[in-house]
Amino acid sequence: MTRYKLILEYDGTNTVGWQSQNNGTSIQGLIADAVCRLAGTVPDVVACGRTDAGVHALAMPAHVDISPTRGDDAQGTGKGLNPDTVMRALNFHLGADAPVAVLSAEITHDNFHARFDCKHRSYRYVILNRTARTVLDRNRVWFMPRKLNVKKMRDAAMQMLGGHDWTSFRSSECQAKSPIKTVDEIKITKSGDYIFIDVAAKSFLHHMVRNIVGTLVDIGLGKPLDIPAIFAAKNRAAAGPTAPAWGLYFVSGEY
Amino acid sequence: MTRYKLILEYDGTNTVGWQSQNNGTSIQGLIADAVCRLAGTVPDVVACGRTDAGVHALAMPAHVDISPTRGDDAQGTGKGLNPDTVMRALNFHLGADAPVAVLSAEITHDNFHARFDCKHRSYRYVILNRTARTVLDRNRVWFMPRKLNVKKMRDAAMQMLGGHDWTSFRSSECQAKSPIKTVDEIKITKSGDYIFIDVAAKSFLHHMVRNIVGTLVDIGLGKPLDIPAIFAAKNRAAAGPTAPAWGLYFVSGEY
Repeated sequence: MTRYKLILEYDGTNTVGWQSQNNGTSIQGLIADAVCRLAGTVPDVVACGRTDAGVHALAMPAHVDISPTRGDDAQGTGKGLNPDTVMRALNFHLGADAPVAVLSAEITHDNFHARFDCKHRSYRYVILNRTARTVLDRNRVWFMPRKLNVKKMRDAAMQMLGGHDWTSFRSSECQAKSPIKTVDEIKITKSGDYIFIDVAAKSFLHHMVRNIVGTLVDIGLGKPLDIPAIFAAKNRAAAGPTAPAWGLYFVSGEY
Repeated sequence: MTRYKLILEYDGTNTVGWQSQNNGTSIQGLIADAVCRLAGTVPDVVACGRTDAGVHALAMPAHVDISPTRGDDAQGTGKGLNPDTVMRALNFHLGADAPVAVLSAEITHDNFHARFDCKHRSYRYVILNRTARTVLDRNRVWFMPRKLNVKKMRDAAMQMLGGHDWTSFRSSECQAKSPIKTVDEIKITKSGDYIFIDVAAKSFLHHMVRNIVGTLVDIGLGKPLDIPAIFAAKNRAAAGPTAPAWGLYFVSGEY
């Protein structure tokens, strides 16, 4: 048995998200199927972040155990399949039309855990702020036809940095024990009609990034929301709405 | 009758390209249908550039004549429909799932011609140069797994600038009278795994940008092609292959 760290790119559009479910295509399920076809075992595939339906990933770390079953695949070194072979074989079994591709694979130690060992996670949210809708960025950005005040959004984002009780920004389905999280970065940049919101932390609560973005957009639209008051309320209704999934990208996980 | 200049964004993926044909969806046909539903007339829609199947546009200028048929749509000034109304109505009639959107509309003079009056056209070609295929940029970039030498490509591009006989870079179906064209810009930039090739000229021959890119990629892969010799050959076989349509974007037309 050899543990591999994979880096995955995926398009969440027509999926139920990362986690295997009975009602549709999951990224976890597609990778597990490909590993099964490669190695003949049904593996548990663990991702750094369990993204929701519609959310994309530019470089999602994951781990999976693979035991070579055929002698001609093994290197005969007791170290399992060559990582480059794993990458190519998984992409072959996924097929060219799959919504996920394996960008890289490497052999890691047997105790490596893609979720629990992650020290730093980065997400990017993309808003297209113009009058006309988009066709080339359909399912890739949040299309916002009303003009956003980026300065107000930046001022509010500054007040979100650091450690807080994020109860007001947490989905009712969130299973985390503690609502205390420390946000290391919220950077808002504008490029043409695009607004990028980059958020980084060791970890996040369920829907936390989308609720941060929904709140910042409300503020950008002129709603008089007060960030310290939202934190103090510890009530989901105090913050803005949940931004749509399709503007969100998991960017990277560091170990 | 009022002539409007439209700016269109489109995704060429599942289309036969700009021009109306019997065998599939065209951008020209979709816009004509939307104008017909708005104004009750079947118009001739003229674009700055007649892109091929699979080619995209970030901002394609086009012109069309619209006569308001209903009094409540007209401003009563004899100047026809408000341009903003035209933009919104065409997008409404196109529908949210159309591969084309109208980014803007303005009233122009009756002799304005989107194709013949254009003084400067810009195209961008996007290559993704890495080992693993992409899912988020499927149908949006040319995926090139073999490493390209960008310096060699830049050196070759320098030799393409200016006025030349482009016979070697011209599709056999090209209907232009003269093969002489002047290329004002070929800029190659690298950003991460992406290589952008920006090409600008007053006008181009059929397939000229894709043949320029195919030739530069051959050179980037190490093929010993000599640009002056390719020009001198005046033979399509002397240049590189035609790059795929899906990496090409019409960026802008200036008047």
